[in-house]
Amino acid sequence: MLQFSECTQYFVPSAIRNKLFDQPDMISFSAGKPEESSFPFAMIQSSIERVLANDKVRAFQYSDTEGFSSFRAQICALASHTKTKASPDDITLTSGSQQGIYFSAKIFLNPGDVVLCENPSYVGALNVFHSFQAKCVGIPLDADGMNLQALEKALCEIPDVKMIYTIPDFQNPTGVTMSVEKRKKLAELAARYEIPVVEDNPYGELRYNGEAYPSIKSFDEKGFVIYLGTFSKIFCPGLRLGYVIAREDIRAKIILAKQMSDLQCSSFNELIAEEFLQQVDWNDHIARVREIYGARNDLMDRCMKEYFPASVHYQKPQGGFFYWLDLPQKGPTSDELLLCAAKEEKVAFLSGTSFYANQDQPHHIRLSFSNVPYERIEEGLKRLGKLLNRYYA
Amino acid sequence: MLQFSECTQYFVPSAIRNKLFDQPDMISFSAGKPEESSFPFAMIQSSIERVLANDKVRAFQYSDTEGFSSFRAQICALASHTKTKASPDDITLTSGSQQGIYFSAKIFLNPGDVVLCENPSYVGALNVFHSFQAKCVGIPLDADGMNLQALEKALCEIPDVKMIYTIPDFQNPTGVTMSVEKRKKLAELAARYEIPVVEDNPYGELRYNGEAYPSIKSFDEKGFVIYLGTFSKIFCPGLRLGYVIAREDIRAKIILAKQMSDLQCSSFNELIAEEFLQQVDWNDHIARVREIYGARNDLMDRCMKEYFPASVHYQKPQGGFFYWLDLPQKGPTSDELLLCAAKEEKVAFLSGTSFYANQDQPHHIRLSFSNVPYERIEEGLKRLGKLLNRYYA
Repeated sequence: MLQFSECTQYFVPSAIRNKLFDQPDMISFSAGKPEESSFPFAMIQSSIERVLANDKVRAFQYSDTEGFSSFRAQICALASHTKTKASPDDITLTSGSQQGIYFSAKIFLNPGDVVLCENPSYVGALNVFHSFQAKCVGIPLDADGMNLQALEKALCEIPDVKMIYTIPDFQNPTGVTMSVEKRKKLAELAARYEIPVVEDNPYGELRYNGEAYPSIKSFDEKGFVIYLGTFSKIFCPGLRLGYVIAREDIRAKIILAKQMSDLQCSSFNELIAEEFLQQVDWNDHIARVREIYGARNDLMDRCMKEYFPASVHYQKPQGGFFYWLDLPQKGPTSDELLLCAAKEEKVAFLSGTSFYANQDQPHHIRLSFSNVPYERIEEGLKRLGKLLNRYYA
Repeated sequence: MLQFSECTQYFVPSAIRNKLFDQPDMISFSAGKPEESSFPFAMIQSSIERVLANDKVRAFQYSDTEGFSSFRAQICALASHTKTKASPDDITLTSGSQQGIYFSAKIFLNPGDVVLCENPSYVGALNVFHSFQAKCVGIPLDADGMNLQALEKALCEIPDVKMIYTIPDFQNPTGVTMSVEKRKKLAELAARYEIPVVEDNPYGELRYNGEAYPSIKSFDEKGFVIYLGTFSKIFCPGLRLGYVIAREDIRAKIILAKQMSDLQCSSFNELIAEEFLQQVDWNDHIARVREIYGARNDLMDRCMKEYFPASVHYQKPQGGFFYWLDLPQKGPTSDELLLCAAKEEKVAFLSGTSFYANQDQPHHIRLSFSNVPYERIEEGLKRLGKLLNRYYA
């Protein structure tokens, strides 16, 4: 008998990567994958050509753990869209923002420590925290983001709080956006209680109306905020590029964690993304991406109004990929609904249960519209509406 | 004050990534980087073109954590070169074999556990084990690999042994190769004591004379051997591709560890490597790579015989990248020699101290010939020889 380490007892398979959803004819609102037509293929191709022509030795050789400095300089410009101030020396490359979450957990969490997070929150982050044998305590989520009274109460009352984890923009899974006032206040609370805030911002650029909000990091005067960004939703996920912006002592530990984990990101992929950022007209590019998702978001809202019973509640998100539905307590649970929907109606989504930090709540579902073709959305929501009307009207 | 996790106290910067070595005019035998002229640029380029023409959606989208099954099938053919039997379902992709080491540690090691490894061993693995708060116990290395009497004694006497780590082919840092008999015996010991063996084999294909030895994994009847492979030395490191071959229960945990860490390797890079393996005439390709390094290996041996004093001992390796020098105990330590060599003679190498599992031994140095241009090797060894003659002759 092999003896595995204790932490493996806390490993949980991701609910997102459920192979049940891969059936043909299924209309799946489950995965938060970006839409392939949003990938800038022509620019990717020309970026690759330039790297191969001008920089092929660096592209295929080892490089520095923290990433190419010229690429990190480009990322500073990107970060400025949310008023996040950063110099190249504040940045470390990671394999997607998932790795930023993982390293944050690695450098801050001991077994038994507590992470405060929105309730519900991103299941892929909760799984990481649990694998470090940390306890997640959910803070209620208001329409304008995490309830900061409840947060401060938790900071005062719960011993061993070691981290606050938040997704301020178009939160996964609820679509909720944190107000600017709360961002400012959260940065202050972090500094006052000396607890790091991990600000996970994969969707920030995907706002379908209005102006970008400043990041929590933009209000961070003392360096208690760790900002995680990614190229997965605004460029493409297949290159596995993300980044962490953090003050020097935190960054030094993240670089060592990265060195031990996998030495570095792909040099080739870094150079491709750097070329892309150098050549792209960012406003044109992001407008095109927003148009694809914005149209789907509007269609979702219109169809849900038309096909769903009034007893099922939701808020239209200002950006991102997700709708969060509150189902009436009378009627099937979200898990039961999912099974029935997948089998009878060939429509899939995620049951909300796995997104809860501690206590599961069995009456919520997440619909992601990011990877459902525009012309399939209405049919998918019609199918789901049929069931919702049957059970909850 | 931020409170970092306990494990961060055990983070050690890699001695290999020392920026002191980057001075101009330096002839550096320090890094184990592959030689850029060994990268099959023309085939990389044509593989990229085919992926872009035929498979661009899959290349830039998310894919499965374990890697594309068609790519894993190609890896099985590669593994057969060392008689390692594997089906695609035994394989998980990792970001280089470094990540294979990291995940092996993650799933097997609790704080206080013991890892048995060759003494000396790969510093990048020792750093990982230490970061999990494990203790490394070094097993003496004979000319034909790890001393198995000493290993068995340690297995019997030391409580909490949880892993054996070995580099059987052209070991880093010593260049020593484990005999076939010892491989067989080691697989048997692992099964008898029910302790996993992590067989790290980055250099196995780089044998400059004779036939490839069968892997330890090829003798593994009970599934106690975890085989780590990489594309970094036989293709290129900039794509960050490696793989783990392990039995089902181990593999399932590695997949979850990968999912939490970074979701997956780069889909694009996987497809490039798959195309390469499909198109390449392997024997031609690997013969070309072996010729580059084999010529350097021969030159190293010839120059060391000519310029080094007889009091400095070494064995010419059968493959790989490394020479390990035993310095006489009378004279400067390896750290002192390195400082003096880098400053006075503009020649660099690695001091042997950081490669030791427990007790540092200050009279060994590692010379890597992999990334020193052929025409600079003689000059570099002349410079070093001057110092060796001054201090140790």
